[in-house]
Order: sequence, then structure tokens, then C-alpha cells
Amino acid sequence: MAQEDIFKKLVAHCKEYGYVFPSSDIYDGLGAVYDYGQNGVELKNNIKKYWWESMVRLHENIVGIDSAIFMHPTIWKASGHVDAFNDPLIDNKDSKKRYRADVLIEDHIAKYDEKIEKDVEKARKRFGDKFDETLFRQTNPQILAHLEKREALRESMAKALNANDLTALRQIIIDNNIVCPISGTANWTEVRQFNLMFSTEMGSTAEGTSKIYLRPETAQGIFVNFLNVQKTGRMKIPFGIAQIGKAFRNEIVARQFIFRMREFEQMEMQFFVRPGTELEWFKKWRETRMKWHQLLGFGAQNYRFHDHEKLAHYANAATDIEYKFPFGFKEVEGIHSRTDFDLSQHQKYSGKKLQYFDTELNESYVPYVIETSIGVDRMFLQIISAAYCEEDLSKDGKQDSRVVLKLPAALAPVKMAVMPLVKKDGLPEKAQEIMDLLKYDFNCQYDEKDSIGKRYRRQDAIGTPFCITVDHQTLQDNAVTIRHRDTMEQERIPIAQLYDILKEKTDLGNLLRQIGK
Amino acid sequence: MAQEDIFKKLVAHCKEYGYVFPSSDIYDGLGAVYDYGQNGVELKNNIKKYWWESMVRLHENIVGIDSAIFMHPTIWKASGHVDAFNDPLIDNKDSKKRYRADVLIEDHIAKYDEKIEKDVEKARKRFGDKFDETLFRQTNPQILAHLEKREALRESMAKALNANDLTALRQIIIDNNIVCPISGTANWTEVRQFNLMFSTEMGSTAEGTSKIYLRPETAQGIFVNFLNVQKTGRMKIPFGIAQIGKAFRNEIVARQFIFRMREFEQMEMQFFVRPGTELEWFKKWRETRMKWHQLLGFGAQNYRFHDHEKLAHYANAATDIEYKFPFGFKEVEGIHSRTDFDLSQHQKYSGKKLQYFDTELNESYVPYVIETSIGVDRMFLQIISAAYCEEDLSKDGKQDSRVVLKLPAALAPVKMAVMPLVKKDGLPEKAQEIMDLLKYDFNCQYDEKDSIGKRYRRQDAIGTPFCITVDHQTLQDNAVTIRHRDTMEQERIPIAQLYDILKEKTDLGNLLRQIGK
Repeated sequence: MAQEDIFKKLVAHCKEYGYVFPSSDIYDGLGAVYDYGQNGVELKNNIKKYWWESMVRLHENIVGIDSAIFMHPTIWKASGHVDAFNDPLIDNKDSKKRYRADVLIEDHIAKYDEKIEKDVEKARKRFGDKFDETLFRQTNPQILAHLEKREALRESMAKALNANDLTALRQIIIDNNIVCPISGTANWTEVRQFNLMFSTEMGSTAEGTSKIYLRPETAQGIFVNFLNVQKTGRMKIPFGIAQIGKAFRNEIVARQFIFRMREFEQMEMQFFVRPGTELEWFKKWRETRMKWHQLLGFGAQNYRFHDHEKLAHYANAATDIEYKFPFGFKEVEGIHSRTDFDLSQHQKYSGKKLQYFDTELNESYVPYVIETSIGVDRMFLQIISAAYCEEDLSKDGKQDSRVVLKLPAALAPVKMAVMPLVKKDGLPEKAQEIMDLLKYDFNCQYDEKDSIGKRYRRQDAIGTPFCITVDHQTLQDNAVTIRHRDTMEQERIPIAQLYDILKEKTDLGNLLRQIGK
Repeated sequence: MAQEDIFKKLVAHCKEYGYVFPSSDIYDGLGAVYDYGQNGVELKNNIKKYWWESMVRLHENIVGIDSAIFMHPTIWKASGHVDAFNDPLIDNKDSKKRYRADVLIEDHIAKYDEKIEKDVEKARKRFGDKFDETLFRQTNPQILAHLEKREALRESMAKALNANDLTALRQIIIDNNIVCPISGTANWTEVRQFNLMFSTEMGSTAEGTSKIYLRPETAQGIFVNFLNVQKTGRMKIPFGIAQIGKAFRNEIVARQFIFRMREFEQMEMQFFVRPGTELEWFKKWRETRMKWHQLLGFGAQNYRFHDHEKLAHYANAATDIEYKFPFGFKEVEGIHSRTDFDLSQHQKYSGKKLQYFDTELNESYVPYVIETSIGVDRMFLQIISAAYCEEDLSKDGKQDSRVVLKLPAALAPVKMAVMPLVKKDGLPEKAQEIMDLLKYDFNCQYDEKDSIGKRYRRQDAIGTPFCITVDHQTLQDNAVTIRHRDTMEQERIPIAQLYDILKEKTDLGNLLRQIGK
């Protein structure tokens, strides 16, 4: 099946099984905003817990905070967001539609790639076994011409964006005859800057209100609390501050389901180090974070680094950890060496000293910072697309299939479904006894409706790692049938062993133990 | 010590020990917004977990969701917030200060109470042992006059507010000669309505942006998802949907630290029932919720119900659970029988049917709703003020004291502090071994600086229930000294027992087990 079809089915699956609903659904939705359903909220909470516990609990020198979404407006002046957190927008005069100028150009660049792939495909069909793809890609004149044009376009866009040259950006669109997908015309307005921060008015004094922003990132909440945490927590450099929370960006192009939303959640950690040691720490966090992602078991080959060649003005090193989504390799986490840019800016704008006295060096300095930053929603999408499987179970001419979410057991919303074989003969009561035994420590679900087969499929669809069936025999031997989600194998085990199985296989503590190894 | 002084010390303690910082502190703060520090975030997360697990995990018929802060603007029209979520504001023309008219009157009402208490106090001093307070309160002419004026004022305010009569509200202020605390004058403007919702502009199409609101409550996110959850979760009435999330209100009078903030967090559960059974369920939830609060062990006498006599137009029963804060009994949780008001309104405004087909009755209806609603921050303040103790430990003429947070162990940020007696002889290494044994399952803190006595005090101040000391003997016998926070008693126990002690005393699962009893 094509990757786009899989993605569409995934989005439908998320709605059908209570993972993700369009926001304000009965009011026909709100653009690029989504709600998490009864299973989605559990998966999302488990992802946050996995991050928080590995960051904060397993590192003696990292602590958490929870700073407010509302912050003093000068903070966003200091951080550069008021002046420079902009998207270049352009309107088509015929369709009246608005676009991000850089995205229009990027889409055009992508078309060269499509053309190249088509040429390769054609040649493969033509030459069959004898086809040498590498050689073809390196020598075919048409492909080389496409590549050249693509690179030239990329370069001129990067140049225009870096120089913040909106006229040049527009000229690229005109020169390449890039048209509006709706009207099909190149009748464009000028390019204008559009700030991505949402603003609102706070307070109501007789003198008026004050304009504040919804934070576009959680990071600044950490920077402005740097000294409070360092002093009250008696932290010594190197140390980190971690935070999970909502952030908001008025994206003009919000795309791909929950991949890019206007309201989203971040997990960010800022690690404060001695100046001059930042690149060492950058390297260390780069490895640590990749290991953390790969521990989920979705295959190392599906992750890669994308080291930034062109750096933001405040950074001296940056990399993305990318995952192979159904729509290609995309960023899941960013690791950035932010130098002392943020703390220095806040020093300047607040007039407060934001320095650390290093007792070993016997001197004060503004620490350097390594940032690790994940979008929770994006990671949710990464995990659920990695877990989504359609399996053909046809056997002996009988058609059968299932959809199963192969979620890591520690992240699955429901750890075990407890099912009485029939709704009588005391089996529901026995099943409830088992629920009472387990429910205080594990998220278990009681499920008595429909045939066992149907119940298994339902639990497969929400990713429950274990189903146990209580049958008549159970009343005699206090044993149940346990069925494993991924292998569909069944075995008979005593009820007394259930706690240990759940503890070993589904407990977050055991996943965390592997980080320690 | 006076209660106000205790409260001031509590606020200072929260900042000094990393519980709560003023937001944007280095920029001199942002009105009525606070950040949670390294210990505050853990306590807050534990409170949320206690609520979530008892609501969602322990009730088979309650599931969670996590809906977005941004919602379709028509939702707030349907809920009544656009038209009626207002505060009546009045300006003093001399001081240029703005006030909530009803709060000005309430403060004036409180003055009658103060006068009464002063009279009682005076009489108590004068009559000594012979003083019969009840009789005095019931018969003293001056007190009776105060009471009469107070009640008249209360009644006329309630009447003006219910009738939404802003002129009458102003007249009460004039008639009672209520003056501005700053200018001391009664030179007042008219009273005007002021909507409490924060608004912002979303999107940027060529046609313009759309005005949306930051949700003032999480409840509506549940109502608009009612059918999505019911259908995809196959829920049968009665069932509930629970949610934890941020809400925003542009309060003109934000007071008492984190008790009333402009940005705050709610834990709300909406329970959908068959019409006609709602008052039964209201009664049940009223008892269940009180039991849940009291299970934390802060003394049943410090909680009380405040049943509402005057009900909101959508409610047919309502009560508050109040706790005795340092500034008096105040609401911690509200339980409301909201009828079918919200779902019916959303039916009307969205044009979508929001009905449930009851297979037992063989009919469809709009369910009735019981709501339970807590402010997380308010509950945080309740717990930390209940836990805050100043103890005199003077003995044999030697002055000594300590500040200790007697937090329920399941909610404490740090469960155990692990302390090597000295920083040499292999004791730090042994302590780290113990950390490695426990840290995957419990939040433990390694602490090696200063004398053991100082370290105990430091852990008392953040509320750590257990400290263990690793001494030279430990290297021989694999036992440690465990010190209990509340009793300060110490005992020697084998390292091998630490896991079981932590599990039994600090694990949330064990607190939840008591709910089951």
C-alpha cells in the first residue's frame, strides 16, 4: 500500500479507537487543532512520563519546573521572538489564498525530486536486471540537469531567507513561474513578514490592558527561572532544568495531522555548562537522546541525525533526530548548542545578573546551554505510526486480517484486558476479582461483550499487550489463559503470576532500567 | 502566630524551597501568574496523578481525554460565556483604580463581621469566666444591629447581581458610602460589565483572522467530545469523562498567592446519567469526593460542605467542599448537578444530535450531568498549607526549632534522601549503590553536603518522608539508619528492606487501595 494511504488509514484509526479527535468536531472542527481521546490521553501521558522520568529521575543533576504560559512581554523582546519570529507570507490575487513563500518554493523543489524518481523508475523498467541505479543517477544528463536546478533554487532561497530579503524571495517565485495550486496563476502580491506569536490582552486597569503573548516555546520559562532553580536547588554546573508544557504558534501552513499544530506540547531540557565545554556536552546529549528514542524498539534504521550546516545566530552546533514517518524522514527532536545567547539577552533586558559562581574556577560566568527539545504531539505521531500494523492472517483459504498497534508495553494505554469467557457461571465475578488484584498498580480494562475473538481484535486495535481469559477451569485451578498481542500466542498461567508479568513487561521502571545499562 | 503571618511565611517558604516562584521573577513578575519550581512541579504532578488514577483507573466507567485550549468560538456562545461570563467593574475617578463592584461590597460586608468579633472580644475580656458567648451574640443590641445591616447589604447585592442591575449595584456602593482604599473618596464611575475570557486572533488568511478564546474552563471540551468518546469507547450510561488541563480567566481581583490566578489548571469530571437519577448521583459524588480529600489525612474537621442555596440557571443542585485555609474556609472543589443544559445548548448551536440511546429503556435522550471540578493550584495551596508546620524542638534549655512539610508520603516530591555520613571511605559509593537500587521505581535524592543534622532539616523543609544514612557500619552489615520525618525517630534496617518500605509507605497504589476499602 502506498505510504499516503497508510497515513490516511492511521488518521481514521486514531479517531475510531479514541486516540485523536479533530477539535470541536461537532462544530466542524478548528483548523490544525486536535483533541486526545480516552486512549490518546493515556499514550500521551505515558510518553511524557517516559521522558520526565528518564530526564529528571535518572539524572541527579537535572530537575524539573512548570512555568506559566503567560510571561512578561519583555521576555519575547529579549529572546528575539518579537522581532524575528516571522513567516514570509504571500497572497495570490486571483484565488485570494495566502501561502508561506518559502513553502511554495520548497514544494517546487520537491517536484524536481519527483521528476528524478520518475526517470529512475522508467529506466529501471526499461533495463531490468542490468540496471545500475547508482551509475544512472550519477550520469544521466536529464537527472543531472534536475539536480542542478534544484540545488540552485535551494541556494537562492536560503540566501534570500538568511538576508531576510523579501523582494528576492518573491522574485524566485516569479522567475520559476510558481503558480497558486487553486487559481493556477502567478498573480502574486508582495511578500510580507507575519509574526507567529499569538497575543492577548491581560488585566483591566483604568489605564488600560497590557499586551502579552502565548509562549511560542517552553525554553524561555527555563531561562528566566535559571537563578531561582540554581539557588534554591543548590545546583552545581553542569546541571539541567526540564519542562513539559503547551506552546502556541500561529502557523499559516499547519499540516500532516498532529505533526504541526497551532497548539502543541513540548518537552524541553536546558543543560547549563561551563563555557568552552559546550561542544563536548552537545556530543554527549546527541548520543544520549538517540539512544533514548531507539530504546522504544522501532528499529535503529528508522532514525537518523540531520546535522545543521547553517546555524541560527545563537547556536554553535545543532542536530535533528529524524524518524522515517509515512511521509518521509522528519524531525522528532532537536539538540542545539545555544551558547550563552539567551541568558545574556535576559541579563541585558532585565538588568539582573544571571551568572554562576564556579567554586572550582573561582570565577563567575554566564553558563553555556545545550538544549534538547521534543514536540510531544509529534512524538505521539511517530510512535503511533511506527506501531500501526495491518497483518494478513489468512490461513487455509480463509481470509482474515487484523490491525494491531504494536506499542511498547510501557507506553500502551491499557496494559491488560481481563475477559470472562461468558457472562455467567460466576466468571464475571472471578474476572472482577482479578481486576481488584491488579487495578491499583496497572491500567487494566474489563471487557465482557462479544466473542473472545472480537475482543482480542478490539484490544489489538488499541494496542493492549496482554489479554487474559477467565474460563470455567479458572474457578478450579486459579489459572487463566494469557494471550500475547504481537505473537498471538496463548499460554496457561496461574493468577498469582499476573502481577509479576505486568511488572516485568509493562512497568516504566523496567524500561528505565535499560537506560541505566 | 496570627494566621496571616503563617501565610506570609508559607509563601516565602514556597519560594525558598523551590515550590513556587513568581512568574517572570527577573522582570519583576507578572500579575497573578506563578511558576512551579523543582519541588512544586513534582508535588503538582503527584496531586494530578492521585486524582487521575482514582477517577480514571479505579472507575471502569470513567475515561479521560485531553482536549485543546483552543476551541471553536461558537462553543462559548452556546455555553453562555460570551454573553454572561462577566465581572461588574467600577473605577474610582480620583485614584484611577478599577475594582470589582461586588468585591467592594463584599469587603464592606466583611467589616461588619470584624466589628462583631471585636465587640465579642471586648466583652470576653470584660466578663472573664462568666462570659456566655452564645447568649451575648444572640442578644447584644449593637451586634444585632450589625447583623441586620450586614444581611440587608448581602440581600440587596444578591438581588442586584441576579437581576444583572448595574445601576442598583452602584447605588449600593454610594448608599453605604463605600470608598476607594487608595484615594479614600466615593467618586465613582458607572458600573460596566467586563468579560473574563482572554481572546486572541487565529490564522492569517487573506480574508482575515478569526477571534478565538482561551478556554475559561475545561468542562466544555468534555461536552463537545461526549459523542466521540461514548461511541469509540462503547460507554454505557452512567459513565464519566475526566480531564486535567489549563484554563484562563482575566480576573480583575487576583488574590491570595496561587488561590486565584489568571492562568490555572483544572481537574474536571463530567458524569453522564439518565434524566431523573441526577440527584441520587449528585449525592453519591458529594460523598465520594469528600472521602477522597479526607483520605489525605489532614483532619476531617478541616473540611466542610457549603451547599448552594441560590443556584446557577443551569443547575438543580450544587455544593462546595471547603477547606480551612489560613485565610478561612474556602472552596477546594465544586460538585454541580448541571442538568442537560450544556449538551442541549451544544445540540442547538451545532445542529448535531447529542443523544444517547438507552438500550434498557429503549429510548434516546440527552443525558443529565454531574460535574466535579477542582482547581489544581488551589488544591496545591490547600495541601501545602495543611502540611506546613513550625515545630519547637527546644530541650534542656537549648533553643531549637524546625520547619517541616508533613506531606502525605505518596504526594511528597522526594520519597527518600540517601546520605553518606562522610564524603570518603567508600560511603558515597555505597550510597550511590542504594540510589541505583531504588531510583528506577522511586524519586530519591542523593545528599552529601553539610552535617547530617543540616541535611535532615533541609529534607524536612521540602517534606521528604524518609532519610537514610550510610555509615561505616553499613559497609559491614548492609544496614542503614532510617529517619522518619514526622516523628524524627531513627531505626536500623537492612538495605534489602528499603524497597518494600518505600513501596508500602510512599507508593500511590497503596493510597488508592484505601479508596477501594
